[in-house]
Amino acid sequence: MAKIITISREFGSGGRELGKRLADELGFDYYDREILEQVAKESELDEAYAEKVLDGSFSLGFPVTFGRTFLYTDILQQDATKLLVAEEKIIRSLAKKGNDMVIVGRCADVILRDYKPLNIFVYADMDSKIARCRWRAPKNEALSDKELARKIKQVDTGRARQRKLMTDKDWGEKESYHLCINTTGASIKNLVSCVAEFAKCYFK
Amino acid sequence: MAKIITISREFGSGGRELGKRLADELGFDYYDREILEQVAKESELDEAYAEKVLDGSFSLGFPVTFGRTFLYTDILQQDATKLLVAEEKIIRSLAKKGNDMVIVGRCADVILRDYKPLNIFVYADMDSKIARCRWRAPKNEALSDKELARKIKQVDTGRARQRKLMTDKDWGEKESYHLCINTTGASIKNLVSCVAEFAKCYFK
Repeated sequence: MAKIITISREFGSGGRELGKRLADELGFDYYDREILEQVAKESELDEAYAEKVLDGSFSLGFPVTFGRTFLYTDILQQDATKLLVAEEKIIRSLAKKGNDMVIVGRCADVILRDYKPLNIFVYADMDSKIARCRWRAPKNEALSDKELARKIKQVDTGRARQRKLMTDKDWGEKESYHLCINTTGASIKNLVSCVAEFAKCYFK
Repeated sequence: MAKIITISREFGSGGRELGKRLADELGFDYYDREILEQVAKESELDEAYAEKVLDGSFSLGFPVTFGRTFLYTDILQQDATKLLVAEEKIIRSLAKKGNDMVIVGRCADVILRDYKPLNIFVYADMDSKIARCRWRAPKNEALSDKELARKIKQVDTGRARQRKLMTDKDWGEKESYHLCINTTGASIKNLVSCVAEFAKCYFK
């Protein structure tokens, strides 16, 4: 059976970078945005829209007018169902290929539970996440620390909401993962080697 | 500076076994009950009593009569202070010796923060903890699953209470640790090798 590592992560914790570098170090396939592209294509929906719906962040900017909100919510619900079904199908088909892989986000730990993946949760304290977001932000983005903290919480609330559709375990609740890794104050590059050593041993 | 690994753990999660085996595998000194023995000796208090006070579990069995409770609590408070001061002193003196070490419990992660230890939290789901407790229980102990679950929660509540005296971070809150390890369904023996590989890389 393929060796699968799933990475769930707090926004700004460096989980995606850790996942990518881990895949490189272990020689595993890596999946993250590639899945989103396929999902959008298969669902015949715009990729940016699909991303927002799947991240659970789309509804946040909606007008609260009753009639329109109801209408929007209804369409959103249909699209969300369509996208989630496509996403699950694509993730399962990737696993079926049998290649070892690292997959970031998308509740892959729940979808692929029969493959007995190593499920990792990556987190950091708020200051560290703010610093990382600022460092990676586009040059024209000028958010205050308060605004960045709000954005981080908003993204993670969306992730938590999406996870609730798949499982009764809360997002980020350590009981759902084999290993939780704190990136506060750490260099992701160095940490990756340690996690890779752990993983090599885990799959022996 | 000495390489120090601190292990905090849920009762029944196998954290102590993991710590012991990890020390063996890495060739580090190991401290757990040895500290308690020294603390009791230095404080001129009975070891079993010292253990209960330090675990925060002593007061649970107390009569609730007002006068006596007040008296007991007062003495308990004095003893707790004396024991905690002795414990901190002993843990600091162990670190000062400069040997690499694994230390289980006793808020060592907080006491030794200046040594930049690798702080690990070990946890498991309740079924797994009950099974482990039953497996390790003395032959004449015949607790039901419900009673064992209550005992586990009681011990961990004591640990959380003691930690509150040392830091504003909650016990078991993943932000306080570098690595959280779930032992549910895992063999501690196998897991130890993975953690040892992680640690070797971490201290490189």
